[in-house]
Amino acid sequence: MALIVQKYGGSSVADAESIKRVAKRIVDTRRAGNDVVVAVSAMGDTTDELLDLAAQVAPIPAPRELDMLLSSGERISMALLAMSIHSMGFDARSFTGPQAGMRTDSRHGAARIVEVTPTRLREALDEGAIVIVAGFQGINDDTQDITTLGRGGSDTTAVALAAALGADVCEIYSDVDGIFTADPRVVPLARKLSHVTSEEMLEMAANGAKVLYIRAVEYARRHGVLIHARSTFTSNEGTYVLGEGMKNPREPEGEAMEEPIVAGVATDLSQAKITVVGVPDVPGKAAEIFKIVAKSGANVDMIVQNAAPTGRADISFTLPKSDAAAALRALAAEQSDVGFEALLHDDQIGKLSVVGAGMRTHSGVSAILFEALSTTGVNIEMISTSEIRISVVVRGDELAEAARVVHAAYGLDGEVEAVVAAGTGR
Amino acid sequence: MALIVQKYGGSSVADAESIKRVAKRIVDTRRAGNDVVVAVSAMGDTTDELLDLAAQVAPIPAPRELDMLLSSGERISMALLAMSIHSMGFDARSFTGPQAGMRTDSRHGAARIVEVTPTRLREALDEGAIVIVAGFQGINDDTQDITTLGRGGSDTTAVALAAALGADVCEIYSDVDGIFTADPRVVPLARKLSHVTSEEMLEMAANGAKVLYIRAVEYARRHGVLIHARSTFTSNEGTYVLGEGMKNPREPEGEAMEEPIVAGVATDLSQAKITVVGVPDVPGKAAEIFKIVAKSGANVDMIVQNAAPTGRADISFTLPKSDAAAALRALAAEQSDVGFEALLHDDQIGKLSVVGAGMRTHSGVSAILFEALSTTGVNIEMISTSEIRISVVVRGDELAEAARVVHAAYGLDGEVEAVVAAGTGR
Repeated sequence: MALIVQKYGGSSVADAESIKRVAKRIVDTRRAGNDVVVAVSAMGDTTDELLDLAAQVAPIPAPRELDMLLSSGERISMALLAMSIHSMGFDARSFTGPQAGMRTDSRHGAARIVEVTPTRLREALDEGAIVIVAGFQGINDDTQDITTLGRGGSDTTAVALAAALGADVCEIYSDVDGIFTADPRVVPLARKLSHVTSEEMLEMAANGAKVLYIRAVEYARRHGVLIHARSTFTSNEGTYVLGEGMKNPREPEGEAMEEPIVAGVATDLSQAKITVVGVPDVPGKAAEIFKIVAKSGANVDMIVQNAAPTGRADISFTLPKSDAAAALRALAAEQSDVGFEALLHDDQIGKLSVVGAGMRTHSGVSAILFEALSTTGVNIEMISTSEIRISVVVRGDELAEAARVVHAAYGLDGEVEAVVAAGTGR
Repeated sequence: MALIVQKYGGSSVADAESIKRVAKRIVDTRRAGNDVVVAVSAMGDTTDELLDLAAQVAPIPAPRELDMLLSSGERISMALLAMSIHSMGFDARSFTGPQAGMRTDSRHGAARIVEVTPTRLREALDEGAIVIVAGFQGINDDTQDITTLGRGGSDTTAVALAAALGADVCEIYSDVDGIFTADPRVVPLARKLSHVTSEEMLEMAANGAKVLYIRAVEYARRHGVLIHARSTFTSNEGTYVLGEGMKNPREPEGEAMEEPIVAGVATDLSQAKITVVGVPDVPGKAAEIFKIVAKSGANVDMIVQNAAPTGRADISFTLPKSDAAAALRALAAEQSDVGFEALLHDDQIGKLSVVGAGMRTHSGVSAILFEALSTTGVNIEMISTSEIRISVVVRGDELAEAARVVHAAYGLDGEVEAVVAAGTGR
């Protein structure tokens, strides 16, 4: 008997009909002879509605109370899901984060899991029940207050439960079919991947792929949890995310095909570029600049510095569009201290990343990228690389074309256009 | 420094504006130098909306899960209330039923409080915080599952907290100004009572007065808690409900007026009457009938039996209209066994009750009632009495007139018409 952890996001339990559909899916998994533990998010827009209410009563809600408020969303969805399963004749019990033993630190709104002690879940499983757990929430070990895990928290809940219970697989359901070689809305010939390594997944997620949250993938990688990303709306197999030493469970032993060099092409239109012009070319200036930017709360991604023979350098960096205003304000306030000449702001950029574990052992991967872009006449503005990734910044309005050309150049194109799921929210 | 427990019902926290108004009221109480503990219900129609969702996913929701679901309503209102108080510059902390130490038995949906261990509330009070507690909910001591207290549960939560913390007073806020000598919508000249004894309050509540829940009044009586029923929408003093040996805190020592013999007139249109016709007049038949009725789940109120010299008797009883169908079905199924001749059902009755602790020591109280009714030509169909109450059943469409006449006959009429609150729901 296998133990399967499943995670359903808000769009999968948006209304009574969806909840009944998910309940049926859970019951089918149970009927197939598996133990089932489910992590569930709040219904549809519940969290946004609660945030809206909070904003109406308090301009800056107290973090402890905001977590108390938001954690009510999952209580609603999980209780409804449990009673729906019950009405199909199966024992199901819902547990809040605290009841599930999801112990965290005290950072309200962005708590980290410290330890999972799923005693009550084990008992319920031993008694034959299907276990439903509130995603996104935990309890602060010190003060016994409710905490929430922040963005993507329910994915993390599911993976943490899978790790603590030694589950065979953690199925993360969403409205897309799995992980694709590119975003099918950008690259119509994108193919669904049968599997991807967790390090590739991390690079793709960090560079624009939205199917899984980085934090959950990291947790899975660290704790050896096998993730299966699949769709709530079909029974198709999705994509397995393999940690170190893991095999794709669908590929019979010994028959593994040779791994492709490039797993996928990720695109990202959410970044802006700031250029600090005419920075005195003396040691410590870059440190000075990025200390100022960090203090503004901005999350810097790519950095390029052109040291010119004039004794002045230009430093460009990218960051989320939403962080740009604060970073610009912070830099402008320190202009005379740092001694730079001007600030340029560009929010019309696009980032294209090619990701593949095979890059480690194959040369010439970047040449294919640059060649493909040059034949299309796309200008490269910035380049950055990791061991298994090459990213370039191009004009935003050229990003889609660039992605299609690069996708084809690496031989990733499928034979038919991918079907894009109707729902796009998660 | 006094410790004041306040309870706000769903209509008092129905939206963001109401929550801010309640927050201000709580802050004013704190500013006046009091420690404040607040029990709060779910916002407006939240509970009904959750019940509706439950009905959509499961015809008969599992009780444990239904309690989990419903308990989310108070988490929302209490977190919003706490953050609203916070934004006014006061420390406020919300606590769920379990966190507040509200320990109950395991009857989901109708749990009884077993013990209150408000350790965390004491700590928060000692640290100067305003304490907000989720009404209506607790935790089952055996299985550590969430329970709810059923109808009027938040009133009971407030009184139980007041008892456990040794509060000076438990203020129960609603949309009416206090306890009246009669329902002002029925008797326009009804007067607000400055105080009422808890035994009078119990009789009035059991016989149609809707301001306070019986269970909360009983708990207060048993644990010596002073209740102050007042309005969320005015700063008027309301009505004190006095337990044994308690004095009205508004009346200076020694100046207490003589107690009125009759405290009020309660009216109730929610009952129906069933008459079992032609019951064999042999011992044990009444027991047989009421065993059948009890098994149907019906809650019998008044009973009248006319033993006739014919060897056959008619037995009439009243019960909530909603219980009548089940009781009739159950009786009809046993007609041949019991040997009665026919069943009559009448849902056009009204019950009028005169309540007053002074009845114990004064004679002639019932004579005033019968005299008043006879001069108006109202026919009495059933009579029942307790130590401090006389109830009569009359035609439903004559109830209002009967109440006005009786109210005047006991000298209860005020000089001006009472203002009826805009909102009527609780």
